[in-house]
Amino acid sequence: MKSILKPVAATVLAAAALAAASASFAQQAPKPEQLIKWRQSAYQVLAWNTGRVKANVDGTYNKDDVIKASNAIAAIANSGLGALYAPGTETGKGWRETTVKPELFTDKKAGEVAAAFNKEANELARVAAVGDVAQVKAQLAKLQGTCKACHDDFRKKD
Amino acid sequence: MKSILKPVAATVLAAAALAAASASFAQQAPKPEQLIKWRQSAYQVLAWNTGRVKANVDGTYNKDDVIKASNAIAAIANSGLGALYAPGTETGKGWRETTVKPELFTDKKAGEVAAAFNKEANELARVAAVGDVAQVKAQLAKLQGTCKACHDDFRKKD
Repeated sequence: MKSILKPVAATVLAAAALAAASASFAQQAPKPEQLIKWRQSAYQVLAWNTGRVKANVDGTYNKDDVIKASNAIAAIANSGLGALYAPGTETGKGWRETTVKPELFTDKKAGEVAAAFNKEANELARVAAVGDVAQVKAQLAKLQGTCKACHDDFRKKD
Repeated sequence: MKSILKPVAATVLAAAALAAASASFAQQAPKPEQLIKWRQSAYQVLAWNTGRVKANVDGTYNKDDVIKASNAIAAIANSGLGALYAPGTETGKGWRETTVKPELFTDKKAGEVAAAFNKEANELARVAAVGDVAQVKAQLAKLQGTCKACHDDFRKKD
């Protein structure tokens, strides 16, 4: 095949191959559907762990369990979830159709509720390590308040 | 209705109501389908974050991004994922049908691969904070080796 290629065409093909190799090396940017699936997953893991903390403060308290759950919540909060709201993810299907409202991508309040969530998540991890049940219960309520604030403004009803 | 209940029946009903109230107070144990959805979500969040670390070591390295991703991986590894494999979750649908093999619930090797995963995840978080790109890349490979070991033995092909 090579012998029938004109020099220009061969150059174009070589450039394309190089570009493809570079893209492969640096990895393709994840598709919007993948980002949506990841963020839906992240909130499920947050729900699992906030539920664990709640079960502990409402029932038999296991400090080690609360610490593990709170550390997972804080690490996910600190992970940079904003990257999962890249342009192109305003609509689309991850595990299911996204329930995000378009306002999340335009309203500056979104950044404020995200920052509040991070703050309270980190505080929960701190209190879990050093505090008593009542303090953890109070801090969990503060954290859940930030969840609700974001859901109220930026999440469509199921 | 109350007047037609015999004393014994009334006592049984009262006991049942009390048990229901207690269960509600301490929260119902999550259903198997919920546990499966949570574990599927946890692995998605792990995939997101290992992919981030890989993109960093293969492309432009951002230490802060690697630390955030590695801390999320370690916190999820340390969170106690074993609780998401409670009896009753051998089969069933979370986001989708589980791909877990029945051997995971009976083969003691499962505990060993889980421990190896935890060890390498914690080491990645440590190396991310203090190491260079080459060290992070080598540690990521070790971590991914533990992912593959578990998938090979305990996960059905998609």
